[in-house]
Amino acid sequence: MRERLVVIGADAAGMSAASQARRLRGAGELEIVAFERGNFTSFSACGIPYWVGGEVEDRDLLIARTAEEHRARDIDLRMRTEVVEIDVAGGRVRAREADSGAEYWTSYDKLVIATGARPIRPGLPGMDAPGVHGVQTLDDGQALIDALARARGRRAVVVGAGYIGVEMAEAMIHRGYEVTVVNRGSEPMSTLDADMGRLVHEAMEGLGITMVDDAEVTAIRTGEDGRARAVATKDAEYPADVVILGIGVRPETGLARAAGLPLGGHGGLLTDLAMRVRGHGNIWAGGDCVEVLDLVSGQERHIPLGTHANKHGQVIGTNVGGGYATFPGVVGTAVSKVCDLEIARTGLREKDARRAGLEYVTATIESTSRAGYYPGATPMTVKMLAERRTGRLLGVQIVGREGAGKRVDIAAVALTAGMTVEQMTALDLGYAPPFSPVWDPVLVAARKAVRAVGQSA
Amino acid sequence: MRERLVVIGADAAGMSAASQARRLRGAGELEIVAFERGNFTSFSACGIPYWVGGEVEDRDLLIARTAEEHRARDIDLRMRTEVVEIDVAGGRVRAREADSGAEYWTSYDKLVIATGARPIRPGLPGMDAPGVHGVQTLDDGQALIDALARARGRRAVVVGAGYIGVEMAEAMIHRGYEVTVVNRGSEPMSTLDADMGRLVHEAMEGLGITMVDDAEVTAIRTGEDGRARAVATKDAEYPADVVILGIGVRPETGLARAAGLPLGGHGGLLTDLAMRVRGHGNIWAGGDCVEVLDLVSGQERHIPLGTHANKHGQVIGTNVGGGYATFPGVVGTAVSKVCDLEIARTGLREKDARRAGLEYVTATIESTSRAGYYPGATPMTVKMLAERRTGRLLGVQIVGREGAGKRVDIAAVALTAGMTVEQMTALDLGYAPPFSPVWDPVLVAARKAVRAVGQSA
Repeated sequence: MRERLVVIGADAAGMSAASQARRLRGAGELEIVAFERGNFTSFSACGIPYWVGGEVEDRDLLIARTAEEHRARDIDLRMRTEVVEIDVAGGRVRAREADSGAEYWTSYDKLVIATGARPIRPGLPGMDAPGVHGVQTLDDGQALIDALARARGRRAVVVGAGYIGVEMAEAMIHRGYEVTVVNRGSEPMSTLDADMGRLVHEAMEGLGITMVDDAEVTAIRTGEDGRARAVATKDAEYPADVVILGIGVRPETGLARAAGLPLGGHGGLLTDLAMRVRGHGNIWAGGDCVEVLDLVSGQERHIPLGTHANKHGQVIGTNVGGGYATFPGVVGTAVSKVCDLEIARTGLREKDARRAGLEYVTATIESTSRAGYYPGATPMTVKMLAERRTGRLLGVQIVGREGAGKRVDIAAVALTAGMTVEQMTALDLGYAPPFSPVWDPVLVAARKAVRAVGQSA
Repeated sequence: MRERLVVIGADAAGMSAASQARRLRGAGELEIVAFERGNFTSFSACGIPYWVGGEVEDRDLLIARTAEEHRARDIDLRMRTEVVEIDVAGGRVRAREADSGAEYWTSYDKLVIATGARPIRPGLPGMDAPGVHGVQTLDDGQALIDALARARGRRAVVVGAGYIGVEMAEAMIHRGYEVTVVNRGSEPMSTLDADMGRLVHEAMEGLGITMVDDAEVTAIRTGEDGRARAVATKDAEYPADVVILGIGVRPETGLARAAGLPLGGHGGLLTDLAMRVRGHGNIWAGGDCVEVLDLVSGQERHIPLGTHANKHGQVIGTNVGGGYATFPGVVGTAVSKVCDLEIARTGLREKDARRAGLEYVTATIESTSRAGYYPGATPMTVKMLAERRTGRLLGVQIVGREGAGKRVDIAAVALTAGMTVEQMTALDLGYAPPFSPVWDPVLVAARKAVRAVGQSA
């Protein structure tokens, strides 16, 4: 009998799942209906800062696969159609067409929830004024680009100094703006420890960006025309011709919550290792709306990131299609850049380790990206956390220039494998003068961590 | 009682060992005497091609630590003094001073053999003619640089297309020479499988280098002045104003062999995991004169590489100094570049796998270094070998441009951890558009390898 798969949300996770299911089961066996409330499908949200910054010229380059391409593969993709209710007991969803307002129920044998995340918008005065921009969707990006074309001045204020915030700071620098980043934390990049965040602060100032830390935004001030004209904190006002919100996102799980599906402490759906919603044999969930297992801390986290969403979709589609695959969890790897500054992290920060009940030592070293004598060698700071006594690697943070960011992958694999820092010192990493000093910076950090572990016994 | 450590060979392995031993035990406890037959100590042989090519301006930049610096740390370093005999039963070595010819015996409580490697020089006519240059030592490099300053023409022939050969080809391109690489193998870079070597061949031709494969050198032709003027093979002659030998090296173990110490099938010293010469409690060996355990094949290999030598020295020095450390082995990682072409490999090639008795599948994919839409994204080919049925990763080879080479580290760590290609597909690697496509090329290869393993069951 032909089964019916319904997919809610047609971005990375949802459409990867649909595509993989289709690869494994033809249209004669599996009908696939996908609902997308927005105007785009399968786009790279991570690419928006580079589109705004002008490095990526055309919006369509960010679209991995269009609605038409999905439809050509026998996926019944319904754009601008929002699922507004899941009837788990009845095995059906209620959809609403944005344009006509028409609603209808449709049944499913199998359901994939890939509703993504929604941007955090603090309920402050002026937050919805013209001139205040999010950057989560392609429509957001287009609205910002259009606004920049019309902007009278060249002052941009970015609220938030996480990945989106620092990437948008770079984009606005590329656009020739004077950029101020207003940040609630003590340093930018709160996904790093503060000592490493300080390096980011200094490097961003070196790029001409005004960094305001420890600053809670209290309001967006508007002018007589109703448009945003400044970002206000308790202590100061930062004039702005454009305000960009880079505050982060939360799982979009209102629908799932209303349907009684299990949510975790971060508001994301909880799944098993096959990405099935816990307790529900025929419902899967993936992407920015789920929580994932952190393999280092053993706790659930919410990490909205395209690379995870794609993996979730691949796993879900394999299982929906009758195969078998699991998503074992994450180690929390992330990499970003601001102009030539590269920032990377994986595993636990100090406060994560404490929260997980782990005692740890730290080691921070400075080294270079290439052999010191080789042209283009740039400085790099590596911080490593290792468990006290056992020496198990817990986390790595790297701030540097070219060649710094992707070095974090060494630690990501070592974390996944449960290696100790002692084992890491013997890793056979690629060495030649244009690529690395004779001791790779990650190995230099591991050697120092070994000594710290020895003293911690 | 004060012990006496004798070190034979004052380069990476020997002097790392001496320095680490000194760090752990002061001069009151441990006397350290180191013999070096050459003129330099602790230099980066790997850096010579970049010095010759002009990217590294000053020879002294390649010297990590001078003789004077070692002596300042209470190491009795005797330059231009060769150890010509080891009397294992008597616990002493015989040394000969190059300048005076004087010989003397000196005793040891502990001995470190770090005699390095010697270049392979085929016994062919003309091989010792002026104009034929090796590039193993700083003296070699200086002689070549001096010869280039005097050279009348601009034609360089490089014999050999391994790491040294391709790096010297780059150096001569930088020098403005017409470069021909004459190579015995069917493709350059025999440390890769031939299909990947073909990509290197094509890319090097694209750089304007004349690549001659399947060509065994029969003689160096000399002119009336006795200087090299061409490289002859069975089929042709390649005119040369300078000839550079990049044929590789063999362990320098004549001394060890004469002393009855155990050598392996590649002519290198055999050690235990603490880098002690097998069966000899007070003799250690490390660097280019030893064989190392290949953790993937379970067999011994000879891999002359500065990064291993430094690790060996660190382990030896720790053990000599009364601590405890081991060198577990290698996975055979190597990385190199020719202009903007990056070449990397780790683990087993197809023929290595066969030799080790392993059945395997392969997967080769093309991807890009960054998100396809991000400026500067360059193509990259990744070949992966996995064990049949179990899916254990066996090896990875990568040929690409910027960002290709060091990606091999992901596979190097995964090999060390004994991961399967299925496990690799879930690796949490750093992702952002300037750094990687949403599926890192290594993960794309792993996904394809998983399918190949599935078909091999």
